[in-house]
Amino acid sequence: MTINLITGGMGFVGVYLARELVAEGEEVVLFQRRKELPPAATDLKGQVKIVSGDISNWVHVVDAVRNNNIECIYHTAALLSTECKASPATCFQVNVVGTYNLLESARILGVSHVIYTSTGYAESLSPPKKFFDDTPLRPSNMYETTKFCSEHLGAQYSRQYDINFRGIRLAMIIGPTRQMSYYHGDYSGTIEKSAQGKPHTIHVDLSMPQSIIYVKDVAHALIALKRADSNKLRQHMYNAGGFTATMQEIADTVKKYLPEAQIDFDWDRSEEMKIASLADSYEMDNTSIREDTGWQPRYPLDDTVLDFISEVKAGKAG
Amino acid sequence: MTINLITGGMGFVGVYLARELVAEGEEVVLFQRRKELPPAATDLKGQVKIVSGDISNWVHVVDAVRNNNIECIYHTAALLSTECKASPATCFQVNVVGTYNLLESARILGVSHVIYTSTGYAESLSPPKKFFDDTPLRPSNMYETTKFCSEHLGAQYSRQYDINFRGIRLAMIIGPTRQMSYYHGDYSGTIEKSAQGKPHTIHVDLSMPQSIIYVKDVAHALIALKRADSNKLRQHMYNAGGFTATMQEIADTVKKYLPEAQIDFDWDRSEEMKIASLADSYEMDNTSIREDTGWQPRYPLDDTVLDFISEVKAGKAG
Amino acid sequence: MTINLITGGMGFVGVYLARELVAEGEEVVLFQRRKELPPAATDLKGQVKIVSGDISNWVHVVDAVRNNNIECIYHTAALLSTECKASPATCFQVNVVGTYNLLESARILGVSHVIYTSTGYAESLSPPKKFFDDTPLRPSNMYETTKFCSEHLGAQYSRQYDINFRGIRLAMIIGPTRQMSYYHGDYSGTIEKSAQGKPHTIHVDLSMPQSIIYVKDVAHALIALKRADSNKLRQHMYNAGGFTATMQEIADTVKKYLPEAQIDFDWDRSEEMKIASLADSYEMDNTSIREDTGWQPRYPLDDTVLDFISEVKAGKAG
Amino acid sequence: MTINLITGGMGFVGVYLARELVAEGEEVVLFQRRKELPPAATDLKGQVKIVSGDISNWVHVVDAVRNNNIECIYHTAALLSTECKASPATCFQVNVVGTYNLLESARILGVSHVIYTSTGYAESLSPPKKFFDDTPLRPSNMYETTKFCSEHLGAQYSRQYDINFRGIRLAMIIGPTRQMSYYHGDYSGTIEKSAQGKPHTIHVDLSMPQSIIYVKDVAHALIALKRADSNKLRQHMYNAGGFTATMQEIADTVKKYLPEAQIDFDWDRSEEMKIASLADSYEMDNTSIREDTGWQPRYPLDDTVLDFISEVKAGKAG
Repeated sequence: MTINLITGGMGFVGVYLARELVAEGEEVVLFQRRKELPPAATDLKGQVKIVSGDISNWVHVVDAVRNNNIECIYHTAALLSTECKASPATCFQVNVVGTYNLLESARILGVSHVIYTSTGYAESLSPPKKFFDDTPLRPSNMYETTKFCSEHLGAQYSRQYDINFRGIRLAMIIGPTRQMSYYHGDYSGTIEKSAQGKPHTIHVDLSMPQSIIYVKDVAHALIALKRADSNKLRQHMYNAGGFTATMQEIADTVKKYLPEAQIDFDWDRSEEMKIASLADSYEMDNTSIREDTGWQPRYPLDDTVLDFISEVKAGKAG
Repeated sequence: MTINLITGGMGFVGVYLARELVAEGEEVVLFQRRKELPPAATDLKGQVKIVSGDISNWVHVVDAVRNNNIECIYHTAALLSTECKASPATCFQVNVVGTYNLLESARILGVSHVIYTSTGYAESLSPPKKFFDDTPLRPSNMYETTKFCSEHLGAQYSRQYDINFRGIRLAMIIGPTRQMSYYHGDYSGTIEKSAQGKPHTIHVDLSMPQSIIYVKDVAHALIALKRADSNKLRQHMYNAGGFTATMQEIADTVKKYLPEAQIDFDWDRSEEMKIASLADSYEMDNTSIREDTGWQPRYPLDDTVLDFISEVKAGKAG
Repeated sequence: MTINLITGGMGFVGVYLARELVAEGEEVVLFQRRKELPPAATDLKGQVKIVSGDISNWVHVVDAVRNNNIECIYHTAALLSTECKASPATCFQVNVVGTYNLLESARILGVSHVIYTSTGYAESLSPPKKFFDDTPLRPSNMYETTKFCSEHLGAQYSRQYDINFRGIRLAMIIGPTRQMSYYHGDYSGTIEKSAQGKPHTIHVDLSMPQSIIYVKDVAHALIALKRADSNKLRQHMYNAGGFTATMQEIADTVKKYLPEAQIDFDWDRSEEMKIASLADSYEMDNTSIREDTGWQPRYPLDDTVLDFISEVKAGKAG
Repeated sequence: MTINLITGGMGFVGVYLARELVAEGEEVVLFQRRKELPPAATDLKGQVKIVSGDISNWVHVVDAVRNNNIECIYHTAALLSTECKASPATCFQVNVVGTYNLLESARILGVSHVIYTSTGYAESLSPPKKFFDDTPLRPSNMYETTKFCSEHLGAQYSRQYDINFRGIRLAMIIGPTRQMSYYHGDYSGTIEKSAQGKPHTIHVDLSMPQSIIYVKDVAHALIALKRADSNKLRQHMYNAGGFTATMQEIADTVKKYLPEAQIDFDWDRSEEMKIASLADSYEMDNTSIREDTGWQPRYPLDDTVLDFISEVKAGKAG
């Protein structure tokens, strides 16, 4: 039975990944700065071990890996976009030095697998903005830059040492408790608020197609990547998108299942919104991960909306 | 008059860059671990200021930049390939944390330009191995991985702050005192040893075309990049190759100018040599840097060999 | 007009120090991880500048000092005893590396004064537990160890560079919002709760004499130390105690001014309490700081209790 | 059979300690930046394992301890006085962060013993400059400051964890290959040069009594401290002096055994020399280490000189 460490284990992806691994009988250690499970994840209490630590402090990382005989690390911890922009120095310590601490700990202590969650680098795409595994990538902000460095550091430790480093580049993830910003929050927000009986006003362009993935599909993809025969994996990093939909389609689907939902629309045509949307309007090709791991998304639009609503109603949103 | 800091300032490229800047009347501070100029560079004594320090120690970097009112940093310091492989941990500290220390110091203290020397990432090229500015890059070892991270960190600080970060991806540099390894040393070694009246035995395939650049052309390219109108620079990183030649052509050219040269040939057909040569057999396209900066190499094969010989005879080789 | 940086500026001592400096017309920058003033310190809003940062990240420290032209640093930031014990690794980063970052920033950027708040190291005292400036000190836990290292690093930077590093070793500080633990919380707690109309139960030995100092006297001592003629300061570190009192005397004084106070007593004679009290039962001699700076405590027991009550009633407690 | 790591293992004390441990059948791993044994220590070739690394890089330290199943660390590595003064930043990294890396590695990986070599802090002594174990210590330069912090960090890890940290505060050590400075080099230098048939001129005051210890006695003391019943050790740090002698007595003893020795005398009465000598002119009381470990110095003046000469003649000096 594998013992897994999930960095950022109380984050959005970490919690769903933990639930999936626990359900399959694996052992899970959550590594995170905070000491207590968030309210939406109290179902994990007693099911997982919690280790409070700072990934940029090597002692915490080595201790977490060694004291728990970790065999597989799912590395989801990262400082997010806004914080990375506010302090590249903090971002570098958490996202780059943190990943390095993890890779060295894995090498030293014989961890077999490091599975990484990366991002889509979509801002730099040229139209028609379809993103294949071999599309040249151009990080465009501090967050993406540190994700990109982490991908390459991981790949190098995998080439040089006996560590199976793999990762996925993710489309826009949606699901309960997704931290929402004004610019990118409509996709999860419309569903979460509607399921909670609250009104929501959409600001993004209703007609823009967007590559989306449901958080449960992310958890499945990470696990599939870890369990795949590593000899058959042609790449270290794989695209992982779920389905493509416009905001209009999402709103329509919510209304199909929650006819009483109060969804308004007030398109923000400001320059800032246009810039923010550059990172959002793209499609993502999944061919390689499907071929190499057999994974495919189980949650197309309707299933995503239905499951999301039922999760919220089951108390898995704040 | 610009005050320049050259990291790795007593290295192969640093010394030639320093000579060029001094000749043009600029001020030069060499930043390096060692405290004394190497024997081949004693001509710089009294012409440059020497600051001994460790780039992975932030205090040394901030002190060097602040105490000398640095306006432009030429960042050539790096742990090289063999050492990076031997200890990725040292490599990470010097090449990644070192670059980060430099970028933060530049940001904090208002340095306008950071000019970087990067590498060709040629191992990953597919045949016919011609390398354009937009060829997708795949770092294949720890050295290349840290160079690649440094490029992207620099580009990000350039996007986010008022720092003109630019760099060149270099073909095989040749010139006096180039540190020679068995695998990659024939190109400089054949010329340097012949000019010193010593015999040299070539181990590489004589017929393999190789992209080469003379160290003086590297110095010119770095300076051209710094002086270019940054609004006209379309990229942060540019290819910089000089000319393409086979080892046979180099040997023939040496013999043309030094008929008494004792050059032998003993082709090493081992697997190791084949692998090492993967990084060597490519061509590099220079179109962008020529168009954007006006720089072009001044030293084709014959001029390289002639100048190299005259440098050696003038005491600029160990 | 001096520009001051207070590290840990939203802490218990930092807030009172800021109020005092602001009242005297000096400029104050608070440096702290959190971004918002705590509820009890909202009176400082608009009076001070807030810089959010992590003292163990050198970039944050250099930025804070440089961007604000800091001339004097009051260094009160520290990880406290319980957290230091829980993770010596975090403690080392914050308390030792943090102090080093500050000292190097002061040296590099020409900060004239660094004024430090240290601790009493009282656990190691032998009876009769009177603590003079020249009493040999023996740190007995991780917190004290890192405070002790910080004192000596500061003294060394003062000897070697043009930095006036001085500090005080403090008796038990009391005042509103003092973070209270079960073991050490009775001294402030009895007063704060009584002033809030809440009941409080005392667990410590009522008859044990304890060296106490009111937080306003701490602020005055730090400022006096900074303003003293540094040529007349014979030491880097000075004892600073206020008055000596037993818990019985404090409770009696509270009742004198708040006859309705509900103070109970339930002496905890457990071994843990005995051990915890070892650090508490001592007297502290103030001779040197009085002679060298002219400072002396303005708040003996009655004044302390009266002022403390009036602060709480003015909203300066949570 | 104990497996020992000696940090600074190719230094003056490290080499003699290694010889002693090897002679007693223990395993020895030398940890040092350089990769090759110094010329005077080639007798250790094949007898010890060499691990090249940087103590300020945690990965190197953890690797060295883990890959060799280390049970006991003798920590002799340190940046020395002159270098510490030149760059407190390098000094902090090597002497403080290096010790911290070692202590955390020991804690994490279950190393039982950490035995430390510290210094005498003699500059701060008041006349008559006799130095007992309980004499209050005042570090007076960066080197001593970092040694002092290291002592206290070690003691704290020993209190908090299952690590037997002990150390000795050493008088002036003499022996072959002792790195010699103008100010402090006469004591070893007079013997080493005379044994090599070279002339030596003494600059220090011939009549000043000095506490001295022969390097072999240092090795014995470190081993005795490690092997002592830790329950009987009353202190973490012990004084260790050998004998007290003046420079005149040393010179006379050399001439007794090497009548042809060319020893001149040219007393340097400069202010610098007076200051440097402040750290030299003291006596050191050994009572505690004798009582607690049974160790006592085997090499009084005559035996020291005789053995030193025979070591030099056996090729154990450069």
